[in-house]
Amino acid sequence: METIELNKRQELIIQIVKDNGPITGESIADRLNLTRATLRPDLAILTMAGYLDARPRVGYFYTGKTGSQLLTEKIKKIKVKEYQSIPVVCDENVSVYDAICTMFLEDVGTLFVVNKDGILVGVLSRKDLLRASLGKQELTNIPVNIIMTRMPNITVCLKEDLIVDVAIKLIEKQIDAVPIVKETEKGFEVVGRLTKTNITKVLVDLGNDEMI
Amino acid sequence: METIELNKRQELIIQIVKDNGPITGESIADRLNLTRATLRPDLAILTMAGYLDARPRVGYFYTGKTGSQLLTEKIKKIKVKEYQSIPVVCDENVSVYDAICTMFLEDVGTLFVVNKDGILVGVLSRKDLLRASLGKQELTNIPVNIIMTRMPNITVCLKEDLIVDVAIKLIEKQIDAVPIVKETEKGFEVVGRLTKTNITKVLVDLGNDEMI
Repeated sequence: METIELNKRQELIIQIVKDNGPITGESIADRLNLTRATLRPDLAILTMAGYLDARPRVGYFYTGKTGSQLLTEKIKKIKVKEYQSIPVVCDENVSVYDAICTMFLEDVGTLFVVNKDGILVGVLSRKDLLRASLGKQELTNIPVNIIMTRMPNITVCLKEDLIVDVAIKLIEKQIDAVPIVKETEKGFEVVGRLTKTNITKVLVDLGNDEMI
Repeated sequence: METIELNKRQELIIQIVKDNGPITGESIADRLNLTRATLRPDLAILTMAGYLDARPRVGYFYTGKTGSQLLTEKIKKIKVKEYQSIPVVCDENVSVYDAICTMFLEDVGTLFVVNKDGILVGVLSRKDLLRASLGKQELTNIPVNIIMTRMPNITVCLKEDLIVDVAIKLIEKQIDAVPIVKETEKGFEVVGRLTKTNITKVLVDLGNDEMI
């Protein structure tokens, strides 16, 4: 939308509609001392670009949207399920050593810890595992449930959530990934993983014009 | 740009200009059996939206850009320097244990290793440090230059590079951060850090309409 540069007259029209809307095309033309015909292209542009909306027998009104806001609407439509990765889980009773091995084998930065029913009980980040490795204890003797972040302190998301909302959570909570969950009677079942890598891919796709 | 939905006539005009451009407004009108005046709003919209370009005494020609391409142009203007973070460096002679401590103290996921002249010689990720911690050796006895990724295998970027190009590098190389460097006679001086967190912030800002 940035590529549409409004001219002076179009900006004036937006201001008039903002202040007086709903207002008819004739009234706008009157205020500008122009004919309705002269104004038609401008009104068409402003309506198509989303700045103004028109209702029959009511007139034009201001949508409250700036050009840039209209642009961001595209980003606000992208859902988690379009970019999710497969989750990698481990059992709550395995050792920190085994968890680190799983992380390397599966090549992920975050493991989700589940109980015997497959319900989410914790999250392990590289940071958590690295902190544990600084200690004096043998890593094979520490169970992951000692060091993991546990419910209800886990940030989760749903398949239908917006990517941009999850991006905000990742930044606010300073985490690299969130489990994508499905609510069940027993708790959250892990169905996916959304990471900063997935979000980086969103930006690459937007930049590559691959989002249509 | 997605919010501009072209009508049939506008799509027809684009097709005519694509096939016959440069072409005058009169010739387009003739082909559509319409008057120049009827066509004026459509041509104005298509020109302002960037689909067509007009040159005096030449006529209209097709820019080759789709609506979505025009939208991505905004993303392709964002530079590294607009979103960079401060780099955290460590000396090439410190131990893995000290590097892990620095990582926690500074709360970063990647350390850049420099020599006595302050020139970039290596990169340490959480993954590198975690791998080292799995070994049998004492972490205080291993110098970081044994385990770090070293030049020339380090992916770097410049302040003036495009964020989207760095995003592509991060995904291709499967890394979380790149050093932002300045070329000197002795080698690369580290002046910043660009991470997947920075890129996640770009998406949040785009979604929040804070990019104007």
